Amino acid sequence: MDILHKVGIKASLEDAYKAVATREGVAGWWTNDVRGESKAGGTLEFRFTAGGVDIGGVEVKVLELHPADLVLWEVVDGPAEWIGTTIRFELKQEDGYAIVLFKHQGWKEPVEFMHHCSTKWAIFLMSLKSLVETGKGAPSPDDIKIDNWN
Amino acid sequence: MDILHKVGIKASLEDAYKAVATREGVAGWWTNDVRGESKAGGTLEFRFTAGGVDIGGVEVKVLELHPADLVLWEVVDGPAEWIGTTIRFELKQEDGYAIVLFKHQGWKEPVEFMHHCSTKWAIFLMSLKSLVETGKGAPSPDDIKIDNWN
Repeated sequence: MDILHKVGIKASLEDAYKAVATREGVAGWWTNDVRGESKAGGTLEFRFTAGGVDIGGVEVKVLELHPADLVLWEVVDGPAEWIGTTIRFELKQEDGYAIVLFKHQGWKEPVEFMHHCSTKWAIFLMSLKSLVETGKGAPSPDDIKIDNWN
Repeated sequence: MDILHKVGIKASLEDAYKAVATREGVAGWWTNDVRGESKAGGTLEFRFTAGGVDIGGVEVKVLELHPADLVLWEVVDGPAEWIGTTIRFELKQEDGYAIVLFKHQGWKEPVEFMHHCSTKWAIFLMSLKSLVETGKGAPSPDDIKIDNWN
């Protein structure tokens, strides 16, 4: 089972790619606390806080990095439901937009947490769009809250 | 294949239910052009415009209406990929929130349009949350645009 999303960013493919493929980029739209190295075979660790309290993290192995085309991660640590899943950003240019097709693939069950993460990914992808278009995203801990799980 | 989402609304279950189960409610967060009758067995028609131009519509049959609990629609007309799918809003109270678990079920293929609709549903459910919490949503044609398909 997969979470799917699409956003179109009024920007070049290069700028959109940089925001997904580099540590500094991801820190501007997903969470401001990113550690590790964004290179094929490397790992990245994302940590999240709410109200100043650490509420957990996610660690991914970077499987593929193809400039202006694809970023692919495999989740190696984090919430139980995420481990072993892959997170994929496919890029293409269309109608003057850098299109991002997003897939968080390999969920085992359609649990409530999957519903939550699906909505939350949409929020973060809109944050990515905003970062690339305006220079300002809304990464954790300043992310938009959607429910009782944040 | 299903699109799943979750939002938590700081409101009573009754108010959240009313925003999903009535024509006036849905007109406040999805599209301002809603026709028909929201009663079990009835049909509702939703029309969308962009830049003043009609860009299509969706017609649903109302299958179930359980106060403070469930709204279930079946799509009977609209985009080809939507016909025969069901749209389900499950409600429950938790942690002081009216929780909405949303499922758009029965997509046949994970086409690009499914990615688009998934992100767009998240935007509309945040509009639902805003409507119930503040009295003001962002239904079409004033909805937040996400990509080249709007």
